[in-house]
Amino acid sequence: MEHQVEDHIVSAATPEHILQVGLGFWASKTLLSAVELGVFSTLADAPADLPTLQRKLALHQRSARDFLDALVALKLLERENGIYSNTADTDQFLDRGKPSYIGGILEMANARLYGFWGSLTEALRSGELQNESKGGGESPFVAMYADPKKLRGFLSAMSGISAGAAQAIAANFPWRDYKTFMDLGSAQGMVPATLAGAHPHLSGIGFDLPQVKPVFEEFIAQRGVDDRVRFHGGSFFEDPLPKVDVIVLGHILHDWDLAQKKMLLSKVFDALPKGGAVVVYDAIIDDDRRKNAFGLLMSLNMLIETPGGFDYTGEDCQAWMREAGFSETRVEPLVGPDSMVVGLK
Amino acid sequence: MEHQVEDHIVSAATPEHILQVGLGFWASKTLLSAVELGVFSTLADAPADLPTLQRKLALHQRSARDFLDALVALKLLERENGIYSNTADTDQFLDRGKPSYIGGILEMANARLYGFWGSLTEALRSGELQNESKGGGESPFVAMYADPKKLRGFLSAMSGISAGAAQAIAANFPWRDYKTFMDLGSAQGMVPATLAGAHPHLSGIGFDLPQVKPVFEEFIAQRGVDDRVRFHGGSFFEDPLPKVDVIVLGHILHDWDLAQKKMLLSKVFDALPKGGAVVVYDAIIDDDRRKNAFGLLMSLNMLIETPGGFDYTGEDCQAWMREAGFSETRVEPLVGPDSMVVGLK
Repeated sequence: MEHQVEDHIVSAATPEHILQVGLGFWASKTLLSAVELGVFSTLADAPADLPTLQRKLALHQRSARDFLDALVALKLLERENGIYSNTADTDQFLDRGKPSYIGGILEMANARLYGFWGSLTEALRSGELQNESKGGGESPFVAMYADPKKLRGFLSAMSGISAGAAQAIAANFPWRDYKTFMDLGSAQGMVPATLAGAHPHLSGIGFDLPQVKPVFEEFIAQRGVDDRVRFHGGSFFEDPLPKVDVIVLGHILHDWDLAQKKMLLSKVFDALPKGGAVVVYDAIIDDDRRKNAFGLLMSLNMLIETPGGFDYTGEDCQAWMREAGFSETRVEPLVGPDSMVVGLK
Repeated sequence: MEHQVEDHIVSAATPEHILQVGLGFWASKTLLSAVELGVFSTLADAPADLPTLQRKLALHQRSARDFLDALVALKLLERENGIYSNTADTDQFLDRGKPSYIGGILEMANARLYGFWGSLTEALRSGELQNESKGGGESPFVAMYADPKKLRGFLSAMSGISAGAAQAIAANFPWRDYKTFMDLGSAQGMVPATLAGAHPHLSGIGFDLPQVKPVFEEFIAQRGVDDRVRFHGGSFFEDPLPKVDVIVLGHILHDWDLAQKKMLLSKVFDALPKGGAVVVYDAIIDDDRRKNAFGLLMSLNMLIETPGGFDYTGEDCQAWMREAGFSETRVEPLVGPDSMVVGLK
């Protein structure tokens, strides 16, 4: 997604930019409903005309044409001579039948986040999360991980939002210098699968709560890397960490408060050998906190979703790493709003 | 707002565009909450630092900085040396203390539409509206117009979404050839106030349901054109229309089904003198239905809000006008996604 808002859409003295952002939930919810209805998976099977699609998707006569043409205007579908088809992007990323599917994050946004964000004003005033755990007191992950169907949805969502970064980390980090890695909070295993797929000399571990095991193993087998990637069940707060050369934390640190973040980095430092490395990635906010809109909004999403989580700048993360004992640190952009912060022991 | 999605944000084989649109409700709801909390009105009084704003807006310590910096990254606030201030746009259009305020549409989006759009999938399947009138059978305007507070909010919202078009119609239509006009479904009176303000030789009428009268007269007096603009209470379906040279219908035709649209145009034709004109404006959809995303999404908003309303192309509207008897018709772009369709009798 766009790393920052483009200058050209802000022009003096017209309300266009304001209305575009303020009513932006229309386009957003239209795409979320399209994913829910299976528009892109249906069109991946075969391009189709309006009556066919209306029937296959069980759309009402009144809504079908506007809905599909809105997706065309949003550049999420193509239409030639009355036949609708996927764009290259939506065919690759939103067809449930392909391993490159990233729609899990949008399914979760549709089923959970869109509604919870309706209480943003309350969250801004109270500092309290607004999801299923609202008014409870338990970690949101406890509720999520207790329900196999919700868990599978969440893990698939995490793959959706990690796919691009996983490829960039596989390409940009000097993996030739290392032999083993662990992805801490691996979810379905997008990062381990991508790293092992790109680098045949690597073997790795996906570390997550024990309930994740079957979903992880299914995904890793689908990706054909189950000979070199295995699952290790545990809690990264309570259990010891396996020994590997490189530990990756992707979309993990932002879930937790400052003390928990520092504790995790310290525990990672202790687990690594001399010469080992930690790779933290998130939608890292620019140090001046004025460009990476997505990173700042992701931090508000942590407000909605967690008791104390927040996103952070590269400077913040490097300071915590040095405090944990890492001798050298650096920040490198990955893709879109994501960057990685690397620390060497 | 953007008339169409820019090509540069669509790049092959990355999920960025998909995630940007799909999670676009984050930015949208952040702006809606900012309007609700009075961020821009507060900063119009005086630029302020983080602790001051946190106190004035009653924001929680956890959320304040991310929220305000997200608004900076979205180019809705500025921040220099730790002092937050409005941008030129947000100062002009989102300060409740200024007559140029257009935030009513965003207040309504925040209080009503964001939630109702959560049921878009159901609307797509059923063809049924999803607002306060859901499951009822009465016109949504009946419920809205019966509650003075909701009515005032709705009328102010209509001003917000009409301000830009009103200025363009004042500038682009040959008003020198006419002396009198009527805005049919005037709401608060943004169009009559703008036309009369720009053209001292014009006098006009705002026509709307009788309940609108006090809100209209207050707005028109504020704009200083109450000597030439008066209110006429009535139903445009049931009551005769006053005689004027030009009748304007802005964001009116899209509220109604095809038979009602044609009936209204026919009634307008009958009311006009020979040589008179009708000016219809809406977020008119491009004839090929593939560019004006906002117009197509507005049509889905009519699905959410009305029993049979829909937006339409310039070609559609010109055909209905010719069927009603208008001899000459043309389509002219106004501003952003809005165009006007002109018919001459």
